[in-house]
Amino acid sequence: MVLIDGKAVSEQVKQEIAAEVADIVAKGGKRPHLAAILVGHDGGSETYVAAKVKACDVCGFKSTLIRYEADVTEEELLARVHELNENPDVDGFIVQLPLPEHISEQKVIEAIDYRKDVDGFHPINVGRMSIGLPCYVSATPSGILELLKRYEIKTQGKKCVILGRSNIVGKPMAALMMQKACPGDATVTVCHSRSRDLVKECREADILIAAMGQPNFVKADMVKEGAVVIDVGTTRVPDASKKSGFKLTGDVKFDEVALKCSFITPVPGGVGPMTIVSLMKNTLLAGKKAIYK
Amino acid sequence: MVLIDGKAVSEQVKQEIAAEVADIVAKGGKRPHLAAILVGHDGGSETYVAAKVKACDVCGFKSTLIRYEADVTEEELLARVHELNENPDVDGFIVQLPLPEHISEQKVIEAIDYRKDVDGFHPINVGRMSIGLPCYVSATPSGILELLKRYEIKTQGKKCVILGRSNIVGKPMAALMMQKACPGDATVTVCHSRSRDLVKECREADILIAAMGQPNFVKADMVKEGAVVIDVGTTRVPDASKKSGFKLTGDVKFDEVALKCSFITPVPGGVGPMTIVSLMKNTLLAGKKAIYK
Repeated sequence: MVLIDGKAVSEQVKQEIAAEVADIVAKGGKRPHLAAILVGHDGGSETYVAAKVKACDVCGFKSTLIRYEADVTEEELLARVHELNENPDVDGFIVQLPLPEHISEQKVIEAIDYRKDVDGFHPINVGRMSIGLPCYVSATPSGILELLKRYEIKTQGKKCVILGRSNIVGKPMAALMMQKACPGDATVTVCHSRSRDLVKECREADILIAAMGQPNFVKADMVKEGAVVIDVGTTRVPDASKKSGFKLTGDVKFDEVALKCSFITPVPGGVGPMTIVSLMKNTLLAGKKAIYK
Repeated sequence: MVLIDGKAVSEQVKQEIAAEVADIVAKGGKRPHLAAILVGHDGGSETYVAAKVKACDVCGFKSTLIRYEADVTEEELLARVHELNENPDVDGFIVQLPLPEHISEQKVIEAIDYRKDVDGFHPINVGRMSIGLPCYVSATPSGILELLKRYEIKTQGKKCVILGRSNIVGKPMAALMMQKACPGDATVTVCHSRSRDLVKECREADILIAAMGQPNFVKADMVKEGAVVIDVGTTRVPDASKKSGFKLTGDVKFDEVALKCSFITPVPGGVGPMTIVSLMKNTLLAGKKAIYK
């Protein structure tokens, strides 16, 4: 069994990006600039955004963190989005989700200029990805593809089962894995809460991608001998023994599943670190105007 | 076995649309207006466009057919697209595909204002469909959903296998069938030319949607007893006994598969007539500005 070390790969990719940025800047080019809007003080969001800012430093990007209190109006937030759209110094930006309930996340996402939408959530980027056109691919699916690529995991013709049909993981992951590409070209099945034969489908998977957000959902008896298991789950489960008071827990019962796998991602340290790296990759593309002019 | 009569359903839907249009016009509203651009004289395209114009008549729509010879430049065509985008009398329009090789289909599709893109091919509509937002759903998948609905075929939790991963049928069909909706909510598997266990997957399907464009590909031994079989194939196979010189042939070996099915669509007369009706439904939505203002 090979433990897929997302942390190590993510460090490597960041070094590659940093080298490219240094090269761009040395040649008189513009240093890529990522801006992030953070609304309120949600613990998870604070952690993610701080990690993104830190990753920008490592990659040699300029970063700007814009904070609003949770009572910011939708209007104010949209005005700021438009300002960032117009600001030529900002290559890409994100609005950290979730947003407070009085603000429409969809409205905010669609207000972002798709050419700066490095999260890849704008319908134009979602649509272009589905059709197979160049675009900003959203972070988690893109990070998983990168892991498959770096570990040289064959996907062509393989049975790939995806648990979960969220807009940010399950659906785009399915679109990418069925694409005529490498990684890709797999026979893709998407299972979800309404699936009748979910366990049977899982047992047939050569590649199992768990993204339901249900801690320890995937047990050993649901996994085929030799399968590749990618765990996207990151639920905070209360744990008094931890200083933070919780333990990040994946969708896969790691201890028992790991014994049967050919490859497996741990939680934490698997897919998680890769999502931030994907955002960095998109920011580099945005800085280079590699996808949109 | 129930033969799904796409022709009858399509006539019924057209009558429903015509009644609604009559009502709109009686109340002083605007008669929906569909424009179609046809380039060259491809036999299939001529037939499809003629059928679309005829369907507009039945539905009470205004229609405009714009013809170009096959040597029209991309520039000219794009200029016309922009003109139609700006024309307030045109509610929706299509550019009949395929286009001659010297014209980029993707460029033309993306030039169409997504609010008038009643074919549902623009990345914004593709992306919105994937996310589950209101949009113009492309004609063939939308027509299939309508058939499933009218024949009250249950899809929730069922295993739906889709053969083919084209941008206009396989991929959107997969997105729609996995959506939390009715029809929808199915466990969806997409198979294609690279799939290793395609036959096995087919045999497990409660609903099998064949859209590979390979005449008579699906045989009886690939279909589970009692399955629902939807045949999207429409290949022109040479047939000297026909006046046209060809016979429209589906992806399913109808005679032998029909004996095992609970429901099946014939070719012709199944999915085909529904695709035009879907375009009519989108045009009505465009006329009413029901999706985009």
